[in-house]
Amino acid sequence: MSDMPKFVHINEEGPREGFQIEKGPISTTQKIELIDALSETGITHIQAVSFVNPKRVPGWADADEVVEGFTAKPGVKYTALVLNDKGLERAVASDKLHVRGTISLTASEKFLMRNQRRTLAENIEAQRGMISLFKQHEVDVNRVSVMAAFGCNFEGNIAASQVLDMVRSGMTLANDSGLNIKEIGLADTMGWATPQDIYRTVGAVRDAYPDHEVVLHLHDTRGMAVANALAGLQLGVAKYDATVGGLGGCPFAANAGASGNICTEDLVFMLGEMGIETGIDLDKLIEVAKLAEDIVGHPLPGSVKVGGNLRTLREQVNAA
Amino acid sequence: MSDMPKFVHINEEGPREGFQIEKGPISTTQKIELIDALSETGITHIQAVSFVNPKRVPGWADADEVVEGFTAKPGVKYTALVLNDKGLERAVASDKLHVRGTISLTASEKFLMRNQRRTLAENIEAQRGMISLFKQHEVDVNRVSVMAAFGCNFEGNIAASQVLDMVRSGMTLANDSGLNIKEIGLADTMGWATPQDIYRTVGAVRDAYPDHEVVLHLHDTRGMAVANALAGLQLGVAKYDATVGGLGGCPFAANAGASGNICTEDLVFMLGEMGIETGIDLDKLIEVAKLAEDIVGHPLPGSVKVGGNLRTLREQVNAA
Repeated sequence: MSDMPKFVHINEEGPREGFQIEKGPISTTQKIELIDALSETGITHIQAVSFVNPKRVPGWADADEVVEGFTAKPGVKYTALVLNDKGLERAVASDKLHVRGTISLTASEKFLMRNQRRTLAENIEAQRGMISLFKQHEVDVNRVSVMAAFGCNFEGNIAASQVLDMVRSGMTLANDSGLNIKEIGLADTMGWATPQDIYRTVGAVRDAYPDHEVVLHLHDTRGMAVANALAGLQLGVAKYDATVGGLGGCPFAANAGASGNICTEDLVFMLGEMGIETGIDLDKLIEVAKLAEDIVGHPLPGSVKVGGNLRTLREQVNAA
Repeated sequence: MSDMPKFVHINEEGPREGFQIEKGPISTTQKIELIDALSETGITHIQAVSFVNPKRVPGWADADEVVEGFTAKPGVKYTALVLNDKGLERAVASDKLHVRGTISLTASEKFLMRNQRRTLAENIEAQRGMISLFKQHEVDVNRVSVMAAFGCNFEGNIAASQVLDMVRSGMTLANDSGLNIKEIGLADTMGWATPQDIYRTVGAVRDAYPDHEVVLHLHDTRGMAVANALAGLQLGVAKYDATVGGLGGCPFAANAGASGNICTEDLVFMLGEMGIETGIDLDKLIEVAKLAEDIVGHPLPGSVKVGGNLRTLREQVNAA
């Protein structure tokens, strides 16, 4: 356990992930309310909106209005999901948004074909185009990300070697363009990982790229996200994407257990109890999780908002 | 990770934990249906009923009828929760039930006072009385269990030394009575544990009693149960209590995230994916989890019953 980090950095993606999947309708005002509430918790990175085609993701048709409406708190970086030139132009148009460039790859060609109608080779070329766009807009590109890094509904198991191949392709692309990559993002996009997969694949990436920081994006489809984060911590991973309340899962009540990303407050709870700092106020975050439930109008899967913060219980015990 | 077991033994407690807390009413027939369905999954230990005061636990007023009604499958051991002489007499009256004796202790005196109106010392005496009863009925007593071993809503943190003191008291009691204790049960009764607590307390117990098998009972109140089980596995713990669907949590829809015990199918999923055998058929178990949801009439917290078994997805991929 010697590799356990002392501080873990959380990138909150609840607004972006949640509002793209929730049936809604959810008003622009409510989206802004959630972002502003998150800004008060101590979280320093919030993926606030998604600049995508409103025909494909109607939940984010109001992304520009949301960006205009929220209050940017000093010390907090707000980002947007950007997949193409149009999105990038909308993102750089706002001085509230911190625009960062990512070389976005996928370990499963079948998933890539299905989602973006590209082969692995075509996606490399598309990423070359994105790098040109980022440069044109003077956006720093410092991350290589690999989706479906732990398994794929259309391809099955994904070997660590496939992930390493993808990371290597991304690094070559970065070198070709004179970029300085600092982070490697690994996403369990379809919730296939169990801790053994984390040890194997993250371990292989860390061995090959010991000077790069690994960032984990863990979906909780099969209830493994917290255990997978523990496995990541044991390998020294100190950056995690997460969504407040576990936003991003299936919005139907009968599937209340179907989670999106790892739940921010459950992760922050575990970290805090294990003596790992996050800079986040768990009590405030729990209130935001409850606000998120009010906004989406159904229970969200996170547990700590129901079970309660232990700090509160300890204070009651000490006061008794 | 060298301590990871090759085989993990699951003690299914869904019927006992679930039906004692669900508002219901749930018919005797439905209780029997769930037990019979569990018997077909490969699970070899099922805590089927609770012989407790029907005034305090009305959900188990029909325990005798349930025992009479279920079909005992060869190779499966069915147990009952027994807290006193009356319960023990009801349990030994059935030849379907496997009656085992446990020295049942609690690390938190405040919890014990609240729940059973006994001091730690009074409970030791009460256990001495239970041992006499077990002996009278020729019931083997081979386990010392400690409740609230990782924290308590009324006492706060529980140090590993408090747990060790309790285990030691239990062992002394066992020695006084000439018993051969083989297992030490540690229960996170109020969902206080995070993996660090598992490492600390289970590690201390294993160091002090290297020849005894540790059994973990992990409540999922704050979403930590699967991660805590992973921590247990890393220490070599190979026996876990669990409840199908995560039965035993708060039955209100708004609290769908409030779990009881660790969810059996989520645990079995993780173990299977990590190459650890359980002898349990996950697909059958998922069907039983859905049956449990139908019986209680509201969503249960388990995730794999929603996310699906990866084996099925792999087969679809291979067939495509």
